Amino acid sequence: MKIGGRHYRSIWVADDGHTVEVINQPLLPHRFEVAQITSFEEAAHAISSMLVRGAPLIGATGAYGMGLAMREDPSDKMLEYAHGELMKTRPTAVNLRWALDKMFGHLKNVDLEDRAAIAYKRAGEICDEDVSVCHGIGQNGLKIIKELVESRSSAEPLNILTHCNAGWLATVDWGTALAPIYMAHDLGISLHVWVDETRPRNQGARLTAWELAAHGVPHTVIVDNVGGHLMQHGMVDMCIVGTDRTTRRGDVCNKIGTYLKALAAKDNDVPFYVALPYPTIDWRIDNGLTQVPIEQRSGDEVHEIQGLTNNGEVERVRLTPRDSDAANYAFDVTPARLVTGLITERGICPASEDGLLELYPEQRVDHQHDIH
Amino acid sequence: MKIGGRHYRSIWVADDGHTVEVINQPLLPHRFEVAQITSFEEAAHAISSMLVRGAPLIGATGAYGMGLAMREDPSDKMLEYAHGELMKTRPTAVNLRWALDKMFGHLKNVDLEDRAAIAYKRAGEICDEDVSVCHGIGQNGLKIIKELVESRSSAEPLNILTHCNAGWLATVDWGTALAPIYMAHDLGISLHVWVDETRPRNQGARLTAWELAAHGVPHTVIVDNVGGHLMQHGMVDMCIVGTDRTTRRGDVCNKIGTYLKALAAKDNDVPFYVALPYPTIDWRIDNGLTQVPIEQRSGDEVHEIQGLTNNGEVERVRLTPRDSDAANYAFDVTPARLVTGLITERGICPASEDGLLELYPEQRVDHQHDIH
Repeated sequence: MKIGGRHYRSIWVADDGHTVEVINQPLLPHRFEVAQITSFEEAAHAISSMLVRGAPLIGATGAYGMGLAMREDPSDKMLEYAHGELMKTRPTAVNLRWALDKMFGHLKNVDLEDRAAIAYKRAGEICDEDVSVCHGIGQNGLKIIKELVESRSSAEPLNILTHCNAGWLATVDWGTALAPIYMAHDLGISLHVWVDETRPRNQGARLTAWELAAHGVPHTVIVDNVGGHLMQHGMVDMCIVGTDRTTRRGDVCNKIGTYLKALAAKDNDVPFYVALPYPTIDWRIDNGLTQVPIEQRSGDEVHEIQGLTNNGEVERVRLTPRDSDAANYAFDVTPARLVTGLITERGICPASEDGLLELYPEQRVDHQHDIH
Repeated sequence: MKIGGRHYRSIWVADDGHTVEVINQPLLPHRFEVAQITSFEEAAHAISSMLVRGAPLIGATGAYGMGLAMREDPSDKMLEYAHGELMKTRPTAVNLRWALDKMFGHLKNVDLEDRAAIAYKRAGEICDEDVSVCHGIGQNGLKIIKELVESRSSAEPLNILTHCNAGWLATVDWGTALAPIYMAHDLGISLHVWVDETRPRNQGARLTAWELAAHGVPHTVIVDNVGGHLMQHGMVDMCIVGTDRTTRRGDVCNKIGTYLKALAAKDNDVPFYVALPYPTIDWRIDNGLTQVPIEQRSGDEVHEIQGLTNNGEVERVRLTPRDSDAANYAFDVTPARLVTGLITERGICPASEDGLLELYPEQRVDHQHDIH
């Protein structure tokens, strides 16, 4: 992804070789600033406060957080402590656990003096792999877009609706749901993206819109209430979203409100796709509705909103009456029955256990080893 | 409705006998101010700018707008002009047309010198009738709440979800969807309201929450994305919403996003009721999806939001990137198949032509006269 002509990833190691740098996402789209993470506590706070967000990116940040911890203190005690503390930062996305467990496994049998260097190396590999996996997702999703375009008689742009931000900023580069869109756009395929605002944190209106604008992809921001109306009127050709955790049977946990759009897509025969890298699949669980922990965040994220004032300041304003409570469920689960297909780095499959195991046959064996 | 111990309606005539006073709704919940409307142009602007909103209240405001017009110039030309200009202010709600046509019918055969006085009298009658009709809706909706409470084994509060504001502020007094809630609360029935924020204009977070807080009804504000998740987890016992226009066959046009909640209610067997006064029924049309004009408002309502700053100022802030477009569809249509029942001043009926004609048998005759 290029910003002002310079190529960026969403996370990287600074020239000093240890400070981790990320894009300060809460300031977007009003300001583009790079934030420094210099300790594992800061890495944990970057995840919990959503300075960084998006399942793959929080996995990558967690991995570097382990590197920062090992730099401070490479003891076994710190290894376990940092793993535990970083794990607590966000309960829903499974990539974080995947990355932290992977780092822990890499580091536990390594000599103490080598742990910091190996941790940074492994974290870098996790990032590189994420870029490659997202590129694969993009290529596979592109096939669906091409087929849809070819199957239509209309020369109008293909209208794609997306929810939240599953773009470059949610991953290390490319994105998941947005990767096929960038690739199609780059090939000259005419498309237009309906961007769900995605309250309460407005990742759509702030981040997806900003990414698409930076890349020159035509798009229109809508409030989260609008998608159903658009689908009723034939104004959406497909939906693509990301996911924070997808179960073995294909239930999709994603940003709150995804389920409502999937219902509308089903009701109007609009294809509803979910794009995901393999670490997002939680092979240990079947039923998304009963088995995925749904993070509840502070009601202040509902009561208040941040925006740009006329004076060019980024400020928070209060939306609700002082006497009113607010609840803030961050994710919901879209049952597999509402999902047209899962787009992964290995291909496209139905949202079902058979579909996923067809793409990941090694999990058939692992599952039997682990559970039975 | 009482505010600070004083009884208010949402619209009334000032002591001078002609200035129309309304509550300045865009300033709520941060400030409670009364606005004066002194000309029919101001009445038109009050409706189009949403100083007042809610199908019944814009009907009442339109009626008083005709009174203001007749006071300025009681000529036939003005009568027609004011009728036409006021009609243009909001295209979706049918109560406005109903009130304006009613006023026009009352005034056209009246001597010029009597028109202003009669217009005010008739507008006052429209307001009084709205209060009485909303009271009837409340009593009928209360029956449903009582039955639901009695059918449950749980002693937990009954959880009711509502979208937008169909309360006291949307009508002259009582409200439509909220009327049964107020009456149940006043009877000591334990209930709790999930208040959809209702982007982009936040009528839920601003107005419904404020009304419920003023009346002491327990409630929690949620973003529009949350309702589906709550219904999946058994946290909603019923939905009640208002409507801006309901067709002869029971399709319900209401604030954008209503359709998504109705889909979720259907998917989770949650009863979904719509409360409406009879002028909201458009007997001339059958199909809500193809025949109801959906108002599109300025994208600025999506790009910017108003709230209270730390300094106590009510300010607007920008949410989206400067380079992004926004679309702003104000209403959607919930097909009759998703509606459990319609609650009117005459009773409760299925959302169907037969259901409505059972309650309004006189429309069977009128329809045949008008259309065939």
